[in-house]
Amino acid sequence: MFFNLGNIRGVQVLIIKKKKRFTIDLSPAQILVLGFLFVIFLGGFLLNLPIASRDGDSVGFINAIFTATSAVCVTGLVVVNTLAHWTLFGQIVILVLIQIGGLGFMTMTTAIFILIGRKITLKERLIIQEALNEYTLSGMVRLIRKILLGTFIIEGMGAILLSIRFVPMYGLSRGIFMSIFHSVSAFCNAGFDIIGGNSLTPFAGDLLVNVIIILLIVLGGLGFTVWWDIIRVGKEKVAKNHSFKRFFQKLTLHTKLVLVISSFLIMLGFVFFFLVEFNNPNTLGQMSLPNKILAALFQGVTPRTAGFNTFDLSLMNDASKFMTIILMFIGGSPAGTAGGVKTVTIGVIVLSVLSVIKGKERTEVFNRTIPRDVLRRALAVIVISLGVVISVTMLLSLSETGDFMDIFFESTSAFATVGLSLGFTSTLTYFGRIIIAITMFIGRLGPVTMALAFSLRSNKNKGQVKKPEERVMVG
Amino acid sequence: MFFNLGNIRGVQVLIIKKKKRFTIDLSPAQILVLGFLFVIFLGGFLLNLPIASRDGDSVGFINAIFTATSAVCVTGLVVVNTLAHWTLFGQIVILVLIQIGGLGFMTMTTAIFILIGRKITLKERLIIQEALNEYTLSGMVRLIRKILLGTFIIEGMGAILLSIRFVPMYGLSRGIFMSIFHSVSAFCNAGFDIIGGNSLTPFAGDLLVNVIIILLIVLGGLGFTVWWDIIRVGKEKVAKNHSFKRFFQKLTLHTKLVLVISSFLIMLGFVFFFLVEFNNPNTLGQMSLPNKILAALFQGVTPRTAGFNTFDLSLMNDASKFMTIILMFIGGSPAGTAGGVKTVTIGVIVLSVLSVIKGKERTEVFNRTIPRDVLRRALAVIVISLGVVISVTMLLSLSETGDFMDIFFESTSAFATVGLSLGFTSTLTYFGRIIIAITMFIGRLGPVTMALAFSLRSNKNKGQVKKPEERVMVG
Ligand SMILES: [K+]
Ligand SMILES: [K+]
Repeated sequence: MFFNLGNIRGVQVLIIKKKKRFTIDLSPAQILVLGFLFVIFLGGFLLNLPIASRDGDSVGFINAIFTATSAVCVTGLVVVNTLAHWTLFGQIVILVLIQIGGLGFMTMTTAIFILIGRKITLKERLIIQEALNEYTLSGMVRLIRKILLGTFIIEGMGAILLSIRFVPMYGLSRGIFMSIFHSVSAFCNAGFDIIGGNSLTPFAGDLLVNVIIILLIVLGGLGFTVWWDIIRVGKEKVAKNHSFKRFFQKLTLHTKLVLVISSFLIMLGFVFFFLVEFNNPNTLGQMSLPNKILAALFQGVTPRTAGFNTFDLSLMNDASKFMTIILMFIGGSPAGTAGGVKTVTIGVIVLSVLSVIKGKERTEVFNRTIPRDVLRRALAVIVISLGVVISVTMLLSLSETGDFMDIFFESTSAFATVGLSLGFTSTLTYFGRIIIAITMFIGRLGPVTMALAFSLRSNKNKGQVKKPEERVMVG
Repeated sequence: MFFNLGNIRGVQVLIIKKKKRFTIDLSPAQILVLGFLFVIFLGGFLLNLPIASRDGDSVGFINAIFTATSAVCVTGLVVVNTLAHWTLFGQIVILVLIQIGGLGFMTMTTAIFILIGRKITLKERLIIQEALNEYTLSGMVRLIRKILLGTFIIEGMGAILLSIRFVPMYGLSRGIFMSIFHSVSAFCNAGFDIIGGNSLTPFAGDLLVNVIIILLIVLGGLGFTVWWDIIRVGKEKVAKNHSFKRFFQKLTLHTKLVLVISSFLIMLGFVFFFLVEFNNPNTLGQMSLPNKILAALFQGVTPRTAGFNTFDLSLMNDASKFMTIILMFIGGSPAGTAGGVKTVTIGVIVLSVLSVIKGKERTEVFNRTIPRDVLRRALAVIVISLGVVISVTMLLSLSETGDFMDIFFESTSAFATVGLSLGFTSTLTYFGRIIIAITMFIGRLGPVTMALAFSLRSNKNKGQVKKPEERVMVG
């Protein structure tokens, strides 16, 4: 989300100079933050209405804001059960908030612009560019249109396939709503469910539901640019009849990294949970072998950062909880619906460390060199994120009464907008709820965007005399 | 420990070419590893003798090796109480192992060489150079002599000052032995005590003991080069009557960073523990205000990586335990007796992140630029260390029955050779003891040295064509 900042700033300043004096100079990052805040408070207002709650009483301001934040930030942590507490009105508000959050606030605004035929300005394009972590200006409007189209096609197909299971179970109208709700929630990596009870645990052994939900989670989490790249190269492959190896080579470095790292993380989680939980009578222990495989696979996918679960996570081994925390922190891929520090960010850091161990001066992968500034940004994202998770864990350890593991898990889940919980969310104090809501917000907008919002300064060294180097000892 | 590796390797290969064919080609890192292993097994053999244990029975091979590893790696984790279990013979063996470990195996070997007047060879110098993380070859022998002298002066003064308290309490001979033991243990950041009970808790309110131990810990943890630098510039200051500001400016960048970061970490720990534990009846709550201050200060210093404690750490708040884990992971400064990833390593990373936030291209501090390769090595040290701590925690979560926090704390303490514990060490299974012993060993020799031992290759990109850069999205 940092690329070509020099340009962005330059162009923006140019625009602002042409405007009247009373214009407030907002950076793209600041507009993003304010936009998200606006949607959250609007959603919170609606959810706070008595007609949103089944008991006819307002849920209370903090709980309404918490739920709206969780929905807009596509997290899925809840202080009240989504099925039991909310009316159909409330559930629809949550669904809309998820869709807005998942597609990104700016994408939606642009969509509205396109639909009403208004011409998109350069500044608006720049804002979207940042919202989508994209680095070329050309074809931005076309891209947004494609994103919307792609999203609705995938979510629609997901809903149709889910209705095979849900319509016979819940009847036509409720079944269709259930299908749409869970398709959108899965694709947006939102983690909200209206099944009641504990997430998707009633469907732990259901192959159809598992496969569809896993596909929706993965597709949403890969990121928009990865889809386009695969489609672009795929068309070429069909046209020129290329081999698979050639197909892979033609992909961008970004796509290659996303695919390889995502596959690795899913496999890692799957094998780990399968082995560690195999005999745990409270999780996989009582299941048949095929169901064990299915449940372990689902648990390998969900930290990327879906938030659904098919068995009770609070009954896992501590090692599995810790592994889930690590996988949640890494999260999904950039420019998608997922949270976390992102697969590519971790990948870049690991590649850099490997190059140091091998005694190489440059970080190379797939016959390409990772630029130095990308590496530095990756490091900044991870360090700041780690700082936030640690601070929140520390703060909640002081304010809440609860097990350290539960608090650590909850904080990471909130920051990476995952929504998995060891059952701790509803026991949070009001102070704790506010902290978790802020954490979800910070986690969704990204630590670097936040840092940007406060200081958007690029390449300050340019033209400066370089200060002399001096070595220090490390390690 | 990585600097001028190209040179080291080059020179070494030259030497080996002159030798006979049967010479085994060992890198400096491999010799260090084997040397440490040799001392540990020798120490383990001695501690395993029946005369080492008060009950006249052998302590058992694994416990003996565990204790020897803990002593040589100056950690201080113990499976049997050092006072209650070991005879005077056993305690002296432990004291000698601590001294060998603290000064560094190679420094000791050189000392013996100097004492017997044998001329030091170039290869031996290179090994010492790596052991001390030093980067110039010149004056290595002189440096070792200074280290020994400095160490014995400081430890001697520490022992004399401690004897003011210990001789009246324990009588002359026992009091002197106690003074020497705790002075060496504190200076070497070893954390072993022969007071019995729970570390230094009986002396929680004793100003004299606290101040001496704190000074010994800090001096040992600053690192040899920092002393020399301060003495060097200090002499100049006296000669030329410089101001304090001028004095600080004249220090090397390394010394400046060590002093600033160490002070910051001690203050951070002090303020944090003082505020968080202020009302905890099991730690600071019952103490008078001066004693609260003293105990909080001690707890701020001990994670750098002394291993003594003056109140029961298992009764701290979870937030304090987590903070201790973080401070232990950071540890002390390079080229000293302390463990952890080191203050400067963390400092370099934080400075780099700050420069990214500020939009600067280079990492600058105190009018100097941190070289890029130093930054990359710092990153590698931290990532590998984090990987080790996480893996060990995961492994112990599976093998041991115990609270996650206790296991996480113990693993970090072992890796950073701290020796603090939440009372978990003696409950470890034999498998757990072996894992912790290996972790102390890896932690002491440093992840990068270990990586070096297996692949010592420098600057492999030299002369290669640079692969084209390609951007990826991060964060
Ligand atoms: K989620
Ligand atoms: K120690």
